[in-house]
Amino acid sequence: ATKTQPVEDPLFAPLLAGDRRALARAITLVESTREDHRERADALLTALLPHTGRSVRLGITGVPGVGKSTFIERFGLHLIEAGHKVAVLAIDPSSKRTGGSILGDKTRMELLSRQANAFIRPSPAGTTLGGVARRTREAMLLVEAAGHDVAIVETVGVGQSETAVADMVDMFILLLPPSGGDDLQGIKKGVVELADLLVVNKADGDLARAAQRSASDYLNALRLLYPVSAAWMPEVRTCSAVEGRGIAEVWDAVGRYRAAQGEAGIARRRGVQARAWLWNEIGETLMAALRRHPEVKRQLAALEHDVETGALAPSAAARRILGTFLGR
Amino acid sequence: ATKTQPVEDPLFAPLLAGDRRALARAITLVESTREDHRERADALLTALLPHTGRSVRLGITGVPGVGKSTFIERFGLHLIEAGHKVAVLAIDPSSKRTGGSILGDKTRMELLSRQANAFIRPSPAGTTLGGVARRTREAMLLVEAAGHDVAIVETVGVGQSETAVADMVDMFILLLPPSGGDDLQGIKKGVVELADLLVVNKADGDLARAAQRSASDYLNALRLLYPVSAAWMPEVRTCSAVEGRGIAEVWDAVGRYRAAQGEAGIARRRGVQARAWLWNEIGETLMAALRRHPEVKRQLAALEHDVETGALAPSAAARRILGTFLGR
Repeated sequence: ATKTQPVEDPLFAPLLAGDRRALARAITLVESTREDHRERADALLTALLPHTGRSVRLGITGVPGVGKSTFIERFGLHLIEAGHKVAVLAIDPSSKRTGGSILGDKTRMELLSRQANAFIRPSPAGTTLGGVARRTREAMLLVEAAGHDVAIVETVGVGQSETAVADMVDMFILLLPPSGGDDLQGIKKGVVELADLLVVNKADGDLARAAQRSASDYLNALRLLYPVSAAWMPEVRTCSAVEGRGIAEVWDAVGRYRAAQGEAGIARRRGVQARAWLWNEIGETLMAALRRHPEVKRQLAALEHDVETGALAPSAAARRILGTFLGR
Repeated sequence: ATKTQPVEDPLFAPLLAGDRRALARAITLVESTREDHRERADALLTALLPHTGRSVRLGITGVPGVGKSTFIERFGLHLIEAGHKVAVLAIDPSSKRTGGSILGDKTRMELLSRQANAFIRPSPAGTTLGGVARRTREAMLLVEAAGHDVAIVETVGVGQSETAVADMVDMFILLLPPSGGDDLQGIKKGVVELADLLVVNKADGDLARAAQRSASDYLNALRLLYPVSAAWMPEVRTCSAVEGRGIAEVWDAVGRYRAAQGEAGIARRRGVQARAWLWNEIGETLMAALRRHPEVKRQLAALEHDVETGALAPSAAARRILGTFLGR
């Protein structure tokens, strides 16, 4: 069976060669919602697919204030010193109205961002977590094709976004603040169960002892939970991102985790993730098609009005829209 | 134009009369994913729609450990003493694998749950935030039809679930822990911007002074932000849920907020929410239809395999599925 060779995308060769501008432009391409951009992105991703997957995919999360940026900067610099090429992708769908945090993000990871072997990409704009996660997954494939062998996906919060990140990485690291024993009830089982490694940050100065105590409290709490997999019992470590201590040990733990899972274990996890990703893609693409449907567009204004004024239940209005869209 | 009168649902009359068992069964009905249950739920909701909307809809959130359950219990008991009928609905999609927190939820709000004028419903099971939020919105309409004049939707976390809750209530209350000034950078602008009222809990014992200081820090932070609406500048209060102090003052603030917004302001907010809800319904219903499509079902196994093994990009596989589903 012969196939016609598709015309090669001009971004393909420079991206594979590790060109930063080509990489940045390719990520912008996958983030675009324009239909022609989407088609080009699909073709580019399919062509690059054989060159992806060769990175350690790490998710890093923690509540606001835990020192996530400082940790990732130190961690990233440590990896670059050891000869790695590091990409940091952010997912932050929580800032809905205006974007950004009180402290601007401009000064985040300044040292890391100056490194030739680091590529940092802020959270893509997007109103839904699904949309943001979708673009970040594709960006991860692109940084891998560009030769980055450590891909870090960071996210904020103690909620749904951790699940989205855990669903796209090989290993999920939870940064925790030092805390009194009474705060332990605050750990949500769901989030801890996602974590393959817990790191108590701020183990310095006045908080050093509290951090050690927290680490052993967290370890006890972990024992109450099922192990994430038979091959690996999550570890608890302490570090001081500000003072740069305990950082190398986190990377050592990543190595132990990967050895424990083995190539087959990682491949299995990625297979399950790819299937979930497919379903996410189906959902997003389907909604885009519905929004473009001419008859649906015409009908929507009246139905939206009825729903807004409380004359019609949203579920009933949705049924009518679907009848139109599917021609049934 | 004459319409045939649909057969009245047996839950309709007892639910309107405030029967708790009918209410619980109706919520179970809207939570069901069975197609015939869904049709019955749609009809029941549409019939009840004229009897809904007469509650104060409050969202309450806060990070794990902030004392949310204790606060809601005290707050609920205060409202019941004042003659209100209170419903508490929970949204917690974060516990994905096994559900529940380390501390069981059985003993939560024990005093409140014993009250005849309180109705407490735990988070519905559901793998997606969208699915959970959808059922909770409908449960809110049902508790309103059953005569509850205060509907509280609680959620955990500092992420996407707050947005879902803020999108279904009249007023959004953020519970905060007392904290040192250096933790202030941890407040995400996005979450604070959603809040109409900030309450610093645990203003008791050793933490009383820290709570007061935190409240004034938060107030200063709020001044850096836009006001949520021209009619209302978010307030910051302290309380001690454990000691029951500051609880009545939170309800006073709710009253001031409602007076400031006016009936028209609340109606406008609800109209915008209903429109967003409609879109959520469309998405969920559409995906359910796709999953039932016979040809899609047949094609899926092979495509899922190709995606899992990395032979096909998920976005490209999604396009093929959609081509089949839409017959294009």
